[in-house]
Amino acid sequence: MTHDNNTHSSSSSSSRNIIEEDRQRAEDREGGIGAGAGMRIIVPLQGVVQGRGGFVLGSVIPCALFYFLQLYLKRHRSERTPREELPPPPRRPSKSPPKPVLASSRALHVIEDENSPYNRGWQAYKENPYDAESNPDGVIQMGLADNQLSWDLIEGWLKSHPEVSSWEGMSDTSLSLRGIAGYQEIHGMPILRSVMAEFMCELMNAPFNPDQIVLTAGATAAIEILGFCLAEPGNAFLVPSPYYPSFCKDVKWRAGVELVPVPCRSSDNFNVTINALDRAFSQTKKRGLTVRALLISNPCNPVGNTLDSATLSMLLGFATEKNIHLVCDEIYAGSVYDSPNFTSIANVVDSGEFDKSRVHIIYGTSKDLCLPGFRVGVIYSYNDKVCKAAQKMSRFCSISSQTQHLLTAMLSDTKFMQLYKIENQRRLGERYHVLTKGLEEAGMKYVKSNAGLYCWVDMGYLMPSYSEKGELNLWDKLLNEAKINVTPGSACYCIEPGWFRICFGTLSSQDLTVALQRIQEFSKRCKRSP
Amino acid sequence: MTHDNNTHSSSSSSSRNIIEEDRQRAEDREGGIGAGAGMRIIVPLQGVVQGRGGFVLGSVIPCALFYFLQLYLKRHRSERTPREELPPPPRRPSKSPPKPVLASSRALHVIEDENSPYNRGWQAYKENPYDAESNPDGVIQMGLADNQLSWDLIEGWLKSHPEVSSWEGMSDTSLSLRGIAGYQEIHGMPILRSVMAEFMCELMNAPFNPDQIVLTAGATAAIEILGFCLAEPGNAFLVPSPYYPSFCKDVKWRAGVELVPVPCRSSDNFNVTINALDRAFSQTKKRGLTVRALLISNPCNPVGNTLDSATLSMLLGFATEKNIHLVCDEIYAGSVYDSPNFTSIANVVDSGEFDKSRVHIIYGTSKDLCLPGFRVGVIYSYNDKVCKAAQKMSRFCSISSQTQHLLTAMLSDTKFMQLYKIENQRRLGERYHVLTKGLEEAGMKYVKSNAGLYCWVDMGYLMPSYSEKGELNLWDKLLNEAKINVTPGSACYCIEPGWFRICFGTLSSQDLTVALQRIQEFSKRCKRSP
Repeated sequence: MTHDNNTHSSSSSSSRNIIEEDRQRAEDREGGIGAGAGMRIIVPLQGVVQGRGGFVLGSVIPCALFYFLQLYLKRHRSERTPREELPPPPRRPSKSPPKPVLASSRALHVIEDENSPYNRGWQAYKENPYDAESNPDGVIQMGLADNQLSWDLIEGWLKSHPEVSSWEGMSDTSLSLRGIAGYQEIHGMPILRSVMAEFMCELMNAPFNPDQIVLTAGATAAIEILGFCLAEPGNAFLVPSPYYPSFCKDVKWRAGVELVPVPCRSSDNFNVTINALDRAFSQTKKRGLTVRALLISNPCNPVGNTLDSATLSMLLGFATEKNIHLVCDEIYAGSVYDSPNFTSIANVVDSGEFDKSRVHIIYGTSKDLCLPGFRVGVIYSYNDKVCKAAQKMSRFCSISSQTQHLLTAMLSDTKFMQLYKIENQRRLGERYHVLTKGLEEAGMKYVKSNAGLYCWVDMGYLMPSYSEKGELNLWDKLLNEAKINVTPGSACYCIEPGWFRICFGTLSSQDLTVALQRIQEFSKRCKRSP
Repeated sequence: MTHDNNTHSSSSSSSRNIIEEDRQRAEDREGGIGAGAGMRIIVPLQGVVQGRGGFVLGSVIPCALFYFLQLYLKRHRSERTPREELPPPPRRPSKSPPKPVLASSRALHVIEDENSPYNRGWQAYKENPYDAESNPDGVIQMGLADNQLSWDLIEGWLKSHPEVSSWEGMSDTSLSLRGIAGYQEIHGMPILRSVMAEFMCELMNAPFNPDQIVLTAGATAAIEILGFCLAEPGNAFLVPSPYYPSFCKDVKWRAGVELVPVPCRSSDNFNVTINALDRAFSQTKKRGLTVRALLISNPCNPVGNTLDSATLSMLLGFATEKNIHLVCDEIYAGSVYDSPNFTSIANVVDSGEFDKSRVHIIYGTSKDLCLPGFRVGVIYSYNDKVCKAAQKMSRFCSISSQTQHLLTAMLSDTKFMQLYKIENQRRLGERYHVLTKGLEEAGMKYVKSNAGLYCWVDMGYLMPSYSEKGELNLWDKLLNEAKINVTPGSACYCIEPGWFRICFGTLSSQDLTVALQRIQEFSKRCKRSP
C-alpha cells in the first residue's frame, strides 16, 4: 500500500514539473518550421487527455488513433496488387485511352518460375530430343520420373479387350454413352472407387474402404486438395528433404501452404531422423508459422528407398505428439523392384495403436501403370471431414468418365494386374541395375535403392565448387555438353550440394547405353580439366 | 500563438488537478479486487511518460504496447482454426491418449452447404428417381441443366467411327498408347487446342488462336482458374443476378473470391442495366471490397436469353471504365434454338474498339455436345499473363488424353458437327415449346427465351407469402407433393421471390408430358387451397 502511494504521488509530482518544462520547450520551439502547426494539433489533445481521467484516456485515445491509422493504411494497401509495380492508374472518364488491367499477384507468382532448372531442362529436351537415328546428338531425357517400360503390357491388354473401348454395346463391359456421358459422382464412379479399393488392398496389403476414396484428375490435384483441406493459407507442411520438386507447386501455388524442408543427410542415407523433425518443427514455430502436417513420399522420390514399419511408426508418433496430419504419397507403391517389400502407412494405421483420423494417403496410376496421360489420382483419407470436403472439391478435377470406364475394366482383371506388377517390377529392377553398373564404371556413388524410376547419384566430386552454384554449374554442363537432362539436388531442396536424380523409366535399353557412355565420357573429361 | 499557449497551460494546470483526483480515486479503490495490482503497473508507467517528454512518449508508449498486444493476439489467434469450436488441446507427452486433429476452416466451410435446396433436391431425386414403368411415383428431375436430347447423335457418330476408340492401330486416327499414355502438355494437346479453336470459330463466328486456349477438366475448373488469376483472396466479382447457382462454389470455395449480385428485375426482363452495375460497383467499394471482374453468362443461365451486341459493348465499356476484367461464360453458345442468333464477346472484342486484355471466355463441351461426363472445359483469354498462369494452373485439372484423342477426332469432323448443331438446336427448341405451352396451360408466366436447357418461370402467384421463405415453401411442396425437382430463384440469387428455373434437357417427351401434368395439377390444387 505504502509503496503504491509513494510511487503514485512521486510520479504525479514529477509530472507536474515536466509538464511545465514541456510548455516551456513548446514555447521555445514555436519559431521552428512546422512545429507550431504540430503543436496546435497535439497539445490541445494532450490537454483533453490529461484534463479528464489521466492515464486511462491518455492511453485509450492514442491507441484509438493508432488503430484507425492502421485501418486506413491497411485498406489503402489492400486495394493495390502487391506484386505489380505500378498501382492502378486513377479512374478516368470512359472515352480516354484504355487502362492496363492487372492479373492477380498469385497469377504473376505462378508464371515466375519459368527459368527453373526443371523448366530449362525440359525446354532443352523439347527443342532437341535425342533419337538414335534422326537426332543422335540430341538431349537425352533423364529428368522425368515417367515409366514407359511396360507400355507394351498395357497396350497388349487393351488390344485383347477391344470391347472395353468399343461403343457397339455388344457386351456388358462395352461403352454406352447413356451410361457415361452424363454427370457422374464428381469424386469418381462408385464402381471404379470400389475396384480401386480392391486394387490398393492387393497392392498395399491393407484394407481400403471405397467410401473413403476420392478420385481426382491426377495425384497432383489430390495433393493440392489435401493442401486446401488440412491447412489455412500461410500454414506449413514439414517435408523431409530431398523431396519431389513439384510438391511446392502443388500446395503453395493456390492453396498457399508453405513447405518447410526437414533436412536429411547422406551420412544417414537420407533417412529422416526424429531430431531433424523436432528441430524443424520448433524452428518453424519460432518463425511464427503453424505446422499442420508432415508430408512424406514412400517409396521416396528422389532417393528411391522404401520406409520400414518402424520409421513409419516413428513418423506417425511424431505427428500424433505434435497433433498434426500425416500425408503419405505412395504413388510408387507398385514400383518396388528389390527387397525390402513395400510397407504402406495403411499397415501401421491398421495396427490400432494410433488415431487414424490424421492419416491421408495419395495414390495414382501415373507411375505404376504407366498412364500419366490418363490423369487418375487417389486421395484415401481416414478423416471423415477431410473426406467429405475432398469429395466436394473434386468438382474442380474430375476424371473423364470414358477413362474411368476403361480403368474399371482393367483393374478388375486382377489376374492381369498381378502378372503386370511382377513383370513391370522385374523390368524396373533390370534397368536400375544397368544404370547403376554404368554409374559405378564412371566412378560415381549413389544411394542403394529398391523402388521408383530413378537413382540418387553423388556427383559432388565433379563440381567446380562445393555449393549450390557449383551444382547448377555442373548440371548446366551435363545438359549442354553431355546432352543429358537430369534433376539437380537443389531442385529437390537437398541440403548437400552435388546430388542428382537420374530417371531411367523413359529410355529403351539402347538409349540407356548411349546415356551411360555420355555420362562416363563427361566424368572423365571433368576429372581431367576440373 | 496566444491561443496555443493558453491551451497548453490550461491543459497542464487542469491535468495537475486530475492527477491528484486520480490518486485519490486509486487510493479509494485499493480495497477493490485487482485494482491495486493494476495501479502498480500503470501508475509508474504514467510517471515515466509524463516525467520525460510529455505528449510524445505519452502517445508512443501506449501505441507500442497496443501494437504488441495486437501482434500477440494475432499470432495466438492464427494458431487456432477459426471455424472449429474447440481450440487444439495443450501439448501432452506422446503416451497420452491421441488428440483430435483439425481440418482446415476452408474444408469445414465447403462441407457446410449440405442442406442447400440444390443438394436436397438432388438427394430426393437420387433416392426416388421417376421411371415411367418401374417407379411412376418417383421424383422427376428438372433441376439439372444437362442435355441428354442428342445423345443418340453423338453415339451414332462414335459407332460409325470405331477406329477412334480402337487400340488396334489400323488407321491414322486410331489410338496408340505410346502416343497418348505419357505426359502431355498439361493445358491440352496442341492438336485438340487447334481443333477446338476452329470449332469455336465456326460456332461463334469469330477468330480464335489455339495458343490462347487452355483446356481444363470441365468448365468448373476453368472458372476457378480465372478466379485465381484475376483476383486476390477477398476481392469481388460482380455478377448480374439471377445467376448460375454454382458460380459461388467455383470462385469462392478455394480461390476466395466474393460474388456480388447485380440485381436484375422482371420489369427489365431480367436484363442488366448500367445503373444497376454502377450502383453495385460503388456499394461494393463502400463495403471495402475491391471489384476485379464482371462475370456474365451468355446465353444467360437461368434466364435463357442471349445478349445482343449493344449490351455486350455496354458491359465491356463498363469493365473498361472501371478497369476490371470481363469474364463471359459462353458454355451454352451452341444451344441457341431461336432468333436472335448468338453473339459472342469475341465479336465485340474483334471490333477493335476495346482493350482485349481484360476479356476472358469460358467454354466447354458439357452442354452443347451432351458430354459433361468427359470433363472438357476451355479458357480463352486475350491476356497473355492470365493465359500463361492459367496454363500452369491447369496441372491441377488436365483432361484425360484418351478423351482428348476422341474429342479431337469428333470436332475435326466439321460436317458432322454442323449437322449435329442444327439438329440439336431443333430438338431443344421443340422441347422448349412443349414445356412453355404446358406452363401456359397451367396459367404460368415465364420469360420468353431463345437458348439454354431451361425456362425461367414465375410461380409467385402460388406462394403462400411474397418472400424467400414463401418461395422455398413452394419449392418444397413442388418436390414433395408434385414430385418435381426444380431450382428455386433464391438459389440463383434472384432478387424477386417466386421465380423458378425448370430444366427440360434430361427428359424424354413422354416424361415431359407427365411432368407438365403434375405441374398443372399442382397449380390447380395450390390455387384452390393457397
